[in-house]
Amino acid sequence: MALLVKHLHAFVTESKLTKEEWMKGLEFLTQSAAITDSERNEFSLLSDILGISSIVDVVSQPVGGTSSSVLGPFHSHDSRLQPNGVDLTGDQPGDRTWLHGYVLDQEGHAIENAEIDFWQNADNGLYPAQDSAQDPHNLRCKIKCAADGSFNLLTIRPHPYTVPTDGPVGALLAASNRSIWRPAHYHVIVSAPGYIGLVTELFPQESDYIDNDTVFGVREGLIVPFVKSSNVEIANRYDLDAPFYEVKFDFKLVKQT
Amino acid sequence: MALLVKHLHAFVTESKLTKEEWMKGLEFLTQSAAITDSERNEFSLLSDILGISSIVDVVSQPVGGTSSSVLGPFHSHDSRLQPNGVDLTGDQPGDRTWLHGYVLDQEGHAIENAEIDFWQNADNGLYPAQDSAQDPHNLRCKIKCAADGSFNLLTIRPHPYTVPTDGPVGALLAASNRSIWRPAHYHVIVSAPGYIGLVTELFPQESDYIDNDTVFGVREGLIVPFVKSSNVEIANRYDLDAPFYEVKFDFKLVKQT
Repeated sequence: MALLVKHLHAFVTESKLTKEEWMKGLEFLTQSAAITDSERNEFSLLSDILGISSIVDVVSQPVGGTSSSVLGPFHSHDSRLQPNGVDLTGDQPGDRTWLHGYVLDQEGHAIENAEIDFWQNADNGLYPAQDSAQDPHNLRCKIKCAADGSFNLLTIRPHPYTVPTDGPVGALLAASNRSIWRPAHYHVIVSAPGYIGLVTELFPQESDYIDNDTVFGVREGLIVPFVKSSNVEIANRYDLDAPFYEVKFDFKLVKQT
Repeated sequence: MALLVKHLHAFVTESKLTKEEWMKGLEFLTQSAAITDSERNEFSLLSDILGISSIVDVVSQPVGGTSSSVLGPFHSHDSRLQPNGVDLTGDQPGDRTWLHGYVLDQEGHAIENAEIDFWQNADNGLYPAQDSAQDPHNLRCKIKCAADGSFNLLTIRPHPYTVPTDGPVGALLAASNRSIWRPAHYHVIVSAPGYIGLVTELFPQESDYIDNDTVFGVREGLIVPFVKSSNVEIANRYDLDAPFYEVKFDFKLVKQT
């Protein structure tokens, strides 16, 4: 609290904040309060677009593992455990993408009993929570990795989307002439007994807005190529027309101390 | 906005804020949102007890006039214009206090057409907005000063009171082992055409909590003695038993540029 007060006072002093500006700030918080409920939290969004969520993420990042990134508002705790290799695509549109890799320790050895919690948006850019036409479990799952630390699943390419803009935060972004877009990304939480949990995202390198994420979630080590693949075994396994896309990513976890 | 972001990021970095602490902060704002409405603003109170309102006041203070102080949540715009010299006390309990002085420019000359907007709490420590037993206009008024800049009124001694403690801000003060009290004070807004308006407070020097105002409103130049007086003219004018209390204070306004 003492540090918070010190830095907020430094902000007021350096900016020579006027009473009118202070009053506008209070009005902003009051308007944010008015549209915040159990389904929507404008303060969380504010934290995101000011980069607070991201800097908290950066300073709490353990040394030596895969970069973490922001959790975002669309994580659900009730994703179903699916078999390693699950096909999440069904008959929905979207570029088929085989995501695979290993969960490793800092020395590059496989971690046993690791678990992946995965979620993303659909081909229309929306998460199930934003789109009643989708099954609530669409494009999300948990997977227990194999004994050698490997995981894989079939999904689709994710898409850029905008943060909600109908509240005070949207007005703030507009007034600041700032982008409202996030680049495309997969959300992944990786956990394993004895290791520090990892909340992160993977970003397609060719995605729009990769250099201008409005919530500042992109880290260099999390940008991945979507490689065209004609791997016959995978094409046969999922009954895919080649080429499809392939994304390989190994997650490195840091031991709890 | 850029400075706000810079200083909030510096806070996170210097405090090495954990995700758990960040989450608690978001919960705090969400709880504050839940009890904020048109009658009560927990964010305004938060600004007060973190000293934000006060530091905004200090940095926006024009040089050369009477110190300003915080507005507080109990100002009403509809106070009635009363004759200079008004008796606000009626038959309510409280130490009768004759408040008088001049509204002056920086050179000490009288300002013509100055107006005083005055409000305070009652002998039970409550403002009318907190106490349905009081007339909504109890112990508040506007006064047009005389041509020589003088004003005077009869009121009672104000009393210390606590900020509202039934919300998240109260919990924060308790967790921080901080006082919930404000020292006694009169609220005064002084305005005059061509001069910068002054929002300020006057604090009885013997008040409890004068060195520990939970909203940091006390300024050295605003602490005033409550002097015992036997002035016969004033005693007769208001039908007072001597001694009563007398507070003399001259307000200095700064010219608009």
